[in-house]
Amino acid sequence: MAKSLGRQALAEFFNCSSQILDDRESLEHIMIKSAEAAGAFPVKSLFHKFSPHGVTGVVIISESHLSIHTWPEYSYAAVDIFTCGNTIDNIRAMEYIKDKLSSGYYSIMEISRGILNIEENKLR
Amino acid sequence: MAKSLGRQALAEFFNCSSQILDDRESLEHIMIKSAEAAGAFPVKSLFHKFSPHGVTGVVIISESHLSIHTWPEYSYAAVDIFTCGNTIDNIRAMEYIKDKLSSGYYSIMEISRGILNIEENKLR
Repeated sequence: MAKSLGRQALAEFFNCSSQILDDRESLEHIMIKSAEAAGAFPVKSLFHKFSPHGVTGVVIISESHLSIHTWPEYSYAAVDIFTCGNTIDNIRAMEYIKDKLSSGYYSIMEISRGILNIEENKLR
Repeated sequence: MAKSLGRQALAEFFNCSSQILDDRESLEHIMIKSAEAAGAFPVKSLFHKFSPHGVTGVVIISESHLSIHTWPEYSYAAVDIFTCGNTIDNIRAMEYIKDKLSSGYYSIMEISRGILNIEENKLR
């Protein structure tokens, strides 16, 4: 990855358990535990269940945040993990979430946020 | 944009006012107002100031969420707006935020989340 202030992993989880995707409490527990599994320190969390379907939730960690949006009717969830520093293992958190959502297939991409200095990156 | 469950705009705001980037209350106000400017309905918000610098904040809207992470020491902020449906004008929200952060230069990209059906997209 480039030298940057932040890193962001974006995951698409398909064919998940629709029951879990509509369960606000379970999702909050899963997301907090995934942050801990990645070596992050959860600070606060905020989860909201929409009517009739779907949950949006955010866990603020001392290294930035995790978010999840679920569409139980499509068995789909979008998960982002935004971190700063190099100590957090985003992929480990995603693996934990994938297992808990029983996702049948998925994709993850990771991007750099806040690339301030091209020169510094060239010299790596 | 592709037919998808969600759309996500990711903005890099450089050369911002460092004072505003470290002001939790102002940032919460700016982010809520930006959501309203875009036609979204804020539901809940959660903002946290880190020591010594920086703020992380999230506004949950009835159409998903907005997030901001600031590095006042680098005059940089990362802002994401995740929406579903076609009624929210992400770029209008970003314009509002850019002005309030006094960002000197910036970039915005927009991505599709949850593309379920390639056939449907081919037929557009």
